[in-house]
Amino acid sequence: MKFGGTSVATLDRIRRAAKRVGVEVAKGYDVIVIVSAMSGETNKLVGYVEETSPLFDAREYDAVVSSGENVTAGLMALTLQEMDVPARSWQGWQVPVRTTSAHASARIEEIPTDNIMAKFGEGMRVAVVAGFQGISPEGRITTLGRGGSDTTAVAFAAAFDAERCDIYTDVDGVYTTDPRICEKARKLDRIAFEEMLELASLGAKVLQTRSVELAMRYKVKLRVLSSFEEMDDAAGTLVCDEEDIMESKVVAGVAHSRDEAKMTLVSVADRPGIAAAIFTPLADAGVNVDMIVQNISEDGRTDMTFSCPTNQVARAQKAMNDAKESGSINFHEILADTAVCKISVVGIGMRSHTGVAAKMFKVLAQEGINIQVITTSEIKISVLVERKYMELAVQALHDAFDLDKAG
Amino acid sequence: MKFGGTSVATLDRIRRAAKRVGVEVAKGYDVIVIVSAMSGETNKLVGYVEETSPLFDAREYDAVVSSGENVTAGLMALTLQEMDVPARSWQGWQVPVRTTSAHASARIEEIPTDNIMAKFGEGMRVAVVAGFQGISPEGRITTLGRGGSDTTAVAFAAAFDAERCDIYTDVDGVYTTDPRICEKARKLDRIAFEEMLELASLGAKVLQTRSVELAMRYKVKLRVLSSFEEMDDAAGTLVCDEEDIMESKVVAGVAHSRDEAKMTLVSVADRPGIAAAIFTPLADAGVNVDMIVQNISEDGRTDMTFSCPTNQVARAQKAMNDAKESGSINFHEILADTAVCKISVVGIGMRSHTGVAAKMFKVLAQEGINIQVITTSEIKISVLVERKYMELAVQALHDAFDLDKAG
Repeated sequence: MKFGGTSVATLDRIRRAAKRVGVEVAKGYDVIVIVSAMSGETNKLVGYVEETSPLFDAREYDAVVSSGENVTAGLMALTLQEMDVPARSWQGWQVPVRTTSAHASARIEEIPTDNIMAKFGEGMRVAVVAGFQGISPEGRITTLGRGGSDTTAVAFAAAFDAERCDIYTDVDGVYTTDPRICEKARKLDRIAFEEMLELASLGAKVLQTRSVELAMRYKVKLRVLSSFEEMDDAAGTLVCDEEDIMESKVVAGVAHSRDEAKMTLVSVADRPGIAAAIFTPLADAGVNVDMIVQNISEDGRTDMTFSCPTNQVARAQKAMNDAKESGSINFHEILADTAVCKISVVGIGMRSHTGVAAKMFKVLAQEGINIQVITTSEIKISVLVERKYMELAVQALHDAFDLDKAG
Repeated sequence: MKFGGTSVATLDRIRRAAKRVGVEVAKGYDVIVIVSAMSGETNKLVGYVEETSPLFDAREYDAVVSSGENVTAGLMALTLQEMDVPARSWQGWQVPVRTTSAHASARIEEIPTDNIMAKFGEGMRVAVVAGFQGISPEGRITTLGRGGSDTTAVAFAAAFDAERCDIYTDVDGVYTTDPRICEKARKLDRIAFEEMLELASLGAKVLQTRSVELAMRYKVKLRVLSSFEEMDDAAGTLVCDEEDIMESKVVAGVAHSRDEAKMTLVSVADRPGIAAAIFTPLADAGVNVDMIVQNISEDGRTDMTFSCPTNQVARAQKAMNDAKESGSINFHEILADTAVCKISVVGIGMRSHTGVAAKMFKVLAQEGINIQVITTSEIKISVLVERKYMELAVQALHDAFDLDKAG
C-alpha cells in the first residue's frame, strides 16, 4: 500500500491512511506500506537546496530531500502502533534499497527481503518504508526522482511477490480523460499496462511512468485508489495485463497536454542527412523532441517542423542558430508557436482495429479543427492543434469513441 | 566546530556559519562541523510524535526527530561547496556513530574515524556531521537527548584528537552570572570543567551537562563562542582544566534557578531511619530531591524540609500522603512553597579558601534576606531564599565577590 503526499499531508490524514492499512491487516494480510513526504515538505527542501546552491551536488541534494519521507514513515508506524497494529519503520538504507549511483534519479537495483521478512516472522504486521530513497554502492543516500515513491512501491511488491500493489492518491482512479475538461469522463475499472504507460508519458499525473514499466515487467497487479473516499475492494482502477481486460474498447482514453510548442525551420535544404544535422544538436542541447514532420520538398528546399516542451523553446532556438552559424545547417528562419496543444487517443485495441486514425481525423475536421502535426505509435495517435480547440477536441473525441459508456 | 539551532536557523545563518568554517580552513585546518536542526524543526517533529502517540515507541521517535539534523548537514555541505571548500555531509549511521540502545537518550560508545579520515586524505577539507544522532547495535537510529549535539561535538573532538572543540551558540560565552538580572555580569575568558559542570546543572543553558563531563574526561579544549558576533581567536569562553586557569578568583560565578519549590513535612517522628522512610518513596516516585534540611528535634519530633523542581510538587505530595496512609511515616501536615529560588556561588577556589560560605551568608544577611535551606559541595554553596529577593541576592553576591573585575 503506497500513500502519496496528499494522503499523508497531516496527522489526521496519516490516521485515515493507517485505518485503511488496519483493514488489510484485519483481513490477515502482512502489509508493506510505502509513504511519501507530507505534501509540501519535499518542495520546501528542494527550495532550500536550490537557493543554497543552484548547481547543487546531487549527493547532498539527495541527503536533504530524502528526509521528508523518514518523518512520515516514523509517524505512520507510531499511528499503527496506537491502533495496536505491530509496525515499525524502515529508511531506505536500513532495508537496504540498493540503487545505482545516479543521484536524484537513481534506479533501484535490488531489494533484499530478509530483514523485513524476519520481522514479519516475529509478529510484526506492517513494515512502513520511506519511499523515494535508497542507498548507492558508495553508501550514500540516493533518491529516485520526483514521484519515485510509486516506483518504490512497485519494486517492493515485485521483490516480496505481493498479492497486489495499491497506490493511494488524491484521485479515485484512472479516467477516460481529464474530468476537469470533459464532464462525461468515466473512471476505468481496468487499463492495460501499455495504455497506462502511454497515458503517463502523455501527462496523466496518476502514476510515475517508471513505476508502470516496472509493474509491467514484473507482472505486479497495480491498483490506483483514492485515499479520500470510502471504497470497496473493487474500487479504483486496476492496471493489468491486457489479457485481463474484459472491456473491448478500441480506445481506452483521450489525453491532452498544454505543455507543447511547435517549432518550424523554414526553407531548409532538403538533402540526405539533413534530419541528423538538425536533431543531433537538439539532442545534445537536451531538447526533448516529440513529434516531427517534414513538408513536401519544393525546389530542393523544405520546412521541418517539430514539437518540444514549452520551456525548452529558447534552448532549441539557440541550438538551431548555433548550428546555422557553424554552417552545418541552413534555414531561412525559425518559428516558434506556443499556442498549441497535443491531443492523443490511446488504446491497445488499435493494434487489431484499423480506422482509428481516420475516425479521429474526421471528427476533428467536422469540428473545424486543423491538424498541424501527427505522430503515431502502435497503440496511440497524437495530433498537435491550436490550443484554443483543446476542450472541444477532447470532448468530441470522447463522444466519438463512446468513452462515456462502459465497454 | 558545532553550530546550534539558532546558528543555522535560516539559509542566511547557515552561510554565516559556513564563512566561519571557511576561515579555519583557510588557516590550514581540516574541520569537522557538527550541526543541529534549524531552530524550531526539532520541536515541530517532537510535537508531531507526541500528538500521534503520547506514549510513543522511542525507536520511532528517534527515526522522526533525527531528520532535522540531516537537512542542515546537507545544506551546510552545499553552502561550503558553493564557497569552493571541499565538503560532504555524514548522517550518524554513515560514520557510524555507535551508541547504546537507550533510544531518545542514547550514549555514544564509539566513533570510528577511518571513513572520515579517508576523505580528508582525498582532499576533503570539511566533514559536516548531523549532530544529536547515532545508530544502535540493532541498526536503528538513536538520538542523544535534547542538546545532544554538544555531546556529539565533544565526542568527535575526542575521537579525532582535535586541537579544540568550538561550540557556536547564541551567547558569546559563559558569564559570571545572568546578564539579564545583573548588568555587571562579566564574560569569563576561562572557566574550569568542574565549575562549568556545576553551572550547567544549576540551569545555565550554555552547554549540555554531558558534553562538559565528556570534555573533562577526554581533556577536550572546549570553547563557547557566539555565531552572531565578529570574533577573534581569543573570544568566547574557554572551558578547560583548572591548571590552565590564570584568574585566581575564589568564586567564578553566581547562578540562580527559579524552578525550585520548598516542601516541609511538619512534625515528623524523629527516629533512626526516618530519612530513608521519607526519601525512598520520593525517589521511587521520580522526584528529584535537591536540598535537604532537618530541624532541631523537640519532644522527639522534627520538621523535615527539602527542595525539588516546581513541576514535581504534586508528585511529591502524593508520594508523602501515600506513605502516611501506608503507615511507613507520620507527619502533621505537608507544606509546599513555590515562591522560592535557589542562589548558588560556584568556584574551584573554594577548595583551598575557607570563609566563602561565611561571606555569602553575611552578604545576604546585610541585605535582610533570610536563608531557608543550605546545601554545599566541594566547589559550590547553594541557598534557598524567597523568590522576590532573587535579583537582589545575585547582584549583592556578584559585588561582594568582585565578579565584575577581571581576576
